[in-house]
Amino acid sequence: MGKPLVLTPLVLTLGDPSGIGPEITVKAWESLRRSPDHAFAFLAPYDLIANLLAKAGLPEPRLISSLGEASGVFSDSLPILPMKADRPVIEGKPTPANASLIMGSISRAVDYCLAGEAAAIVTNPISKDVLYQSGFKHPGHTEYLGELTKDHTPPYSRGPLMMLANDQLRVALVTVHQSIQSAAQSITQDKIIKHARILNGALQHDLGVQKPRIAMAALNPHAGENGAMGDAEIKIINPAAEKLRLEGINITNAMPPDTMFHSEARAHYDAALCMYHDQGLIPVKTIDFHGTVNVTMGLPIVRTSPDHGTAFDIAGKDIARADSLIAAIKLARTIADNRIQHG
Amino acid sequence: MGKPLVLTPLVLTLGDPSGIGPEITVKAWESLRRSPDHAFAFLAPYDLIANLLAKAGLPEPRLISSLGEASGVFSDSLPILPMKADRPVIEGKPTPANASLIMGSISRAVDYCLAGEAAAIVTNPISKDVLYQSGFKHPGHTEYLGELTKDHTPPYSRGPLMMLANDQLRVALVTVHQSIQSAAQSITQDKIIKHARILNGALQHDLGVQKPRIAMAALNPHAGENGAMGDAEIKIINPAAEKLRLEGINITNAMPPDTMFHSEARAHYDAALCMYHDQGLIPVKTIDFHGTVNVTMGLPIVRTSPDHGTAFDIAGKDIARADSLIAAIKLARTIADNRIQHG
Repeated sequence: MGKPLVLTPLVLTLGDPSGIGPEITVKAWESLRRSPDHAFAFLAPYDLIANLLAKAGLPEPRLISSLGEASGVFSDSLPILPMKADRPVIEGKPTPANASLIMGSISRAVDYCLAGEAAAIVTNPISKDVLYQSGFKHPGHTEYLGELTKDHTPPYSRGPLMMLANDQLRVALVTVHQSIQSAAQSITQDKIIKHARILNGALQHDLGVQKPRIAMAALNPHAGENGAMGDAEIKIINPAAEKLRLEGINITNAMPPDTMFHSEARAHYDAALCMYHDQGLIPVKTIDFHGTVNVTMGLPIVRTSPDHGTAFDIAGKDIARADSLIAAIKLARTIADNRIQHG
Repeated sequence: MGKPLVLTPLVLTLGDPSGIGPEITVKAWESLRRSPDHAFAFLAPYDLIANLLAKAGLPEPRLISSLGEASGVFSDSLPILPMKADRPVIEGKPTPANASLIMGSISRAVDYCLAGEAAAIVTNPISKDVLYQSGFKHPGHTEYLGELTKDHTPPYSRGPLMMLANDQLRVALVTVHQSIQSAAQSITQDKIIKHARILNGALQHDLGVQKPRIAMAALNPHAGENGAMGDAEIKIINPAAEKLRLEGINITNAMPPDTMFHSEARAHYDAALCMYHDQGLIPVKTIDFHGTVNVTMGLPIVRTSPDHGTAFDIAGKDIARADSLIAAIKLARTIADNRIQHG
């Protein structure tokens, strides 16, 4: 299937407007405006963005009323799908009063994607603390997107499951935001099998890897050394790997975690399935801190986000780096294109 | 204090002769023979090494009877302090029958160091499995060296404590060869304090860092996020850090592990104190797999070793890389020189 002449644009959510989201979105637009493939519209209050652009000596943004207008204006002006802010946004001073604005931009972005008007969502960072204070009930962005898209069918096993990716390494996590002890206790064969299936599907459908090779990390040092340092490898991880291989998924047994992430080792796999948060995030962020992207796998829509938070402490200081958001925009485009081509 | 005209040489132990130790030692000599600062003698059976050198088209080794002869011959021949092998060594086929040979080379090397004839020991890899079968009672090399030197006074807090180091990152571990759950359960304030003192001493005395800055890793993701994902940070790690700062050690509170190992973060500290094996070893080996060195801190003698095992599977195939051994030899020299200068 060839590429259409005008690609469906991407849509960027507002994120927490008191964080660095608006600033890095302006910087990303400035960096990508000559790249029509990466055209996007920004769901944001017009005045907020107009002020930022003016301060940066950049052209006024363009109010658009439908996503179809975004690609045509993108090289000249940052296209804005307007959101109404009830009160002025103060950089570095988040308020639960903005919760409906923040969540509204996410649900509108999802609607655009489900309607086929946007090719993918790239979400700016939110602060869960701020949203919890106004009744947000989800562990995070990822789960909220799962809820919003639950009536639609994903192209492979249903997630949502988080992947962290940069040019050198992709990792997915079997457990995420848990203490290390609770993570160690909650690893099951079912969880590993479910997550490996989603990861395998994402590599095929989203990332264009025809025959994915997945490296499975052990839980314990030296992969437990035959049970001398823990038996999760023998009792849980390797049996799960065996079942996965029987269904045709190319995944290793538990590998010693310390020797699987250097460049020669990485050449042998397309993604690593890690047992706990820091096991995956330490190597991916050590290798490329600014260029790492968060990808949500297993949703009916394509969603990426920068791999950092709202950074309220540096908001408004014009020092935030847009590298991760730019990488997220590029990867969202790649995934959207792959889904069109591979289904 | 100026450098003496002829430096006291280093001594290399045999390691398991069926592993890659002899091969990488020959390669290290070939690489370093024009560097008089790195002169070393090898405790090894003469014939074994003579055969390896002949196969490589290199000059015959030189039998020496005292370490004082090593520096004079080093550029021409690999100096051998002979060990008697009772049976032929078969590459890739370890045997407990070699245990006394292997352990004898370690204890002789320690004697040379304690007598001031060798500046430092660089140990070739051993296999604990092989040694256990003949009654070796120590968890590893490091603890055995602690036992052999227990009647002598180290220049700072007594270890032994392992550091992994390369040009970009140094890590020390609060727990080492334990399952992740047992590691998480066994972290105490006392252990952290003891290990931080040794690390601080090693940075000052061994590595020439006048005012060491130590980054302390959290146990849990996001440093526990104020107790939401584990409370070891609140109850154990941060109180230990506070006590250490009161005694003048510059150490941070628990840092989120995933964001502390990239290059910009590393610029803020001289070493990281990690809570468990893979937390420290994943980043250090991901950053520089071949150049990472194992340093034993807090002994009366200087000891380094390559950060890999015996590699029986590739022994005798001439494909083993000597990078880590060469880095270990260089670092041993640096530490020995620093100890002479700084006490």
